[in-house]
Amino acid sequence: MTSGDVGQAPDRIPFEDLAEAIVDRLREAGASEDVSRILALNCASCERDGTLSHGVFRVRGYLDSLTRGWADGRAVPEVESVGPSYIRVDGMGGFAQPALAAAGPLIAEALTETGVAVVALRDTHHFSALWPELEGFARDGYAAIAMIASGKLAVVPVGADRAVFSTNPFGFATPVDGADPLVFDFSTSSMSHGDLQLAAAEGDQVPPHTGVDAEGAETQDPRAILDGGGLRPFGGHKGALLSLMIETLAAGLTGGSFTYEVDAEAPEGAHTFRTGQLYIVIDPSRGGNEAYPSRIRAFADMLRDAGMSRLPADRRYANRAAAAALGIPVTDVIRELLGRE
Amino acid sequence: MTSGDVGQAPDRIPFEDLAEAIVDRLREAGASEDVSRILALNCASCERDGTLSHGVFRVRGYLDSLTRGWADGRAVPEVESVGPSYIRVDGMGGFAQPALAAAGPLIAEALTETGVAVVALRDTHHFSALWPELEGFARDGYAAIAMIASGKLAVVPVGADRAVFSTNPFGFATPVDGADPLVFDFSTSSMSHGDLQLAAAEGDQVPPHTGVDAEGAETQDPRAILDGGGLRPFGGHKGALLSLMIETLAAGLTGGSFTYEVDAEAPEGAHTFRTGQLYIVIDPSRGGNEAYPSRIRAFADMLRDAGMSRLPADRRYANRAAAAALGIPVTDVIRELLGRE
Repeated sequence: MTSGDVGQAPDRIPFEDLAEAIVDRLREAGASEDVSRILALNCASCERDGTLSHGVFRVRGYLDSLTRGWADGRAVPEVESVGPSYIRVDGMGGFAQPALAAAGPLIAEALTETGVAVVALRDTHHFSALWPELEGFARDGYAAIAMIASGKLAVVPVGADRAVFSTNPFGFATPVDGADPLVFDFSTSSMSHGDLQLAAAEGDQVPPHTGVDAEGAETQDPRAILDGGGLRPFGGHKGALLSLMIETLAAGLTGGSFTYEVDAEAPEGAHTFRTGQLYIVIDPSRGGNEAYPSRIRAFADMLRDAGMSRLPADRRYANRAAAAALGIPVTDVIRELLGRE
Repeated sequence: MTSGDVGQAPDRIPFEDLAEAIVDRLREAGASEDVSRILALNCASCERDGTLSHGVFRVRGYLDSLTRGWADGRAVPEVESVGPSYIRVDGMGGFAQPALAAAGPLIAEALTETGVAVVALRDTHHFSALWPELEGFARDGYAAIAMIASGKLAVVPVGADRAVFSTNPFGFATPVDGADPLVFDFSTSSMSHGDLQLAAAEGDQVPPHTGVDAEGAETQDPRAILDGGGLRPFGGHKGALLSLMIETLAAGLTGGSFTYEVDAEAPEGAHTFRTGQLYIVIDPSRGGNEAYPSRIRAFADMLRDAGMSRLPADRRYANRAAAAALGIPVTDVIRELLGRE
């Protein structure tokens, strides 16, 4: 990554132009127009908001999966209501975001009519951050939880002699009265796979207790962790328990593949994984709880007053405002995407 | 705590006798017969299964809350269906377990008819582990998540100048084909308040990074953490994010009190807190996913094969089997309860 010298603005690109460039690459790799637009919007949003590990950096992985025929860029998801608040989606080997979008009308109906939507996606590839979809639910007034069986065997809990979990992200969003939603997502590993790959690409060391090498010994070399070793869960055994839950719900409950199943079948060079995702979306105000958004605002104000100057998503919103005013900083990865090397 | 010498069996008490002794104490303190039986069953189950920090050790706290008139041992919960899969319960200042039991018929109906039950309890005191209720849902074939705004200001995230969260427990359970359910619960603090109190009572040190003293400096003295200091969240900022989510859902969504609200109003000497709890219960097999229990079994078998010899709840089930055969070990706390000091 390069940044401009002091006093010299770095090269910038408008959000729309970046998204359009990603659309073009995805379409060239065989994705449909709709799928390309949904993925590009997601990817450009991550880049704009400073989530670089899930931004343009990931386009190569999308392209690799598409060109290998591993992810189907033209899949037509099958959406089924299995209860008034319960929706199952078979992504048919496509990506998760288009599958979730295909379920959009049924999700909206479930939320309006019942206040609850459990959305179980299977046979879907998820290769991005969780926050973009979560933020959307929160902007519509809903509290939302998401979890992914992310599908690359990568995490070795203490006691295990090999990787048994993926980085299995977890996320949450809530509306806040008169403010942007509180939104977070995090991997249940000590570090996200994207950040680990970035550290390896840049030759950086990672913090102690991040992971183990192929022999199971602790290491701070990200390449050793990637090369047959594994990450530790975050937070010791509690993080491992969360990861176990996420596999159980995002793979088992959805009918998607567990990490230990899918990792073996992914073709050489695949970067995305055909697993499952679970979203639980709830109308927090339904049933006489109209004070919810203002009470969350008071709670957030209390946290800031106690010194927590940065609440979840604050940094993303700041990056987003800067990008709206100035454009998105053009990194080497973006330069490569644009063919400006 | 004492244990028997080698070769000499410790004093034991049958589960039913222990539960009956707790019932008597709760009734003497003013709780109704039904409430006393529900709480005693929960408390004796924790003791039986080796969850000592939430077992008989906690009876004193129940009694203190009852005799101070802070928790209402005769409360009649108000249960309302606010959607086919969404139930709100006003605990009317009583305990959470009787409030959940009062919602039992509506929860069963929601699960049978829709496959989903979101159960939001407010104005309820929860003073136990989460696993007893979660295990029950799993034995009935459901996957269940629970979270509590536990109501004692106790947790100081990095960056905060005071405690802003409680230990906010999180729990999960799932059925497993041909085996006991996988069930876990944990506090989102570095240590549960119960274990911290036990360490303080026994004069033990706690591990590094467990908490801070009243001046905000790290300490390993549990009394300093209890005396105006605070615990850290587990797992750094990710644990803090989970705690933020739990406050948001278990207090905000339920309409219960946030920890920062309720702590100030609890009377001197109160050990239980009038907050809220959220349960999300889902039928994982509904809609063509009948393979769920056997797939979870295969997943658990894979974890054991990888060397994870102890999966969630294994230790509790082992303790339970021993207690069924031999009775429950009589600790000093039990001796005091029984008036055998």
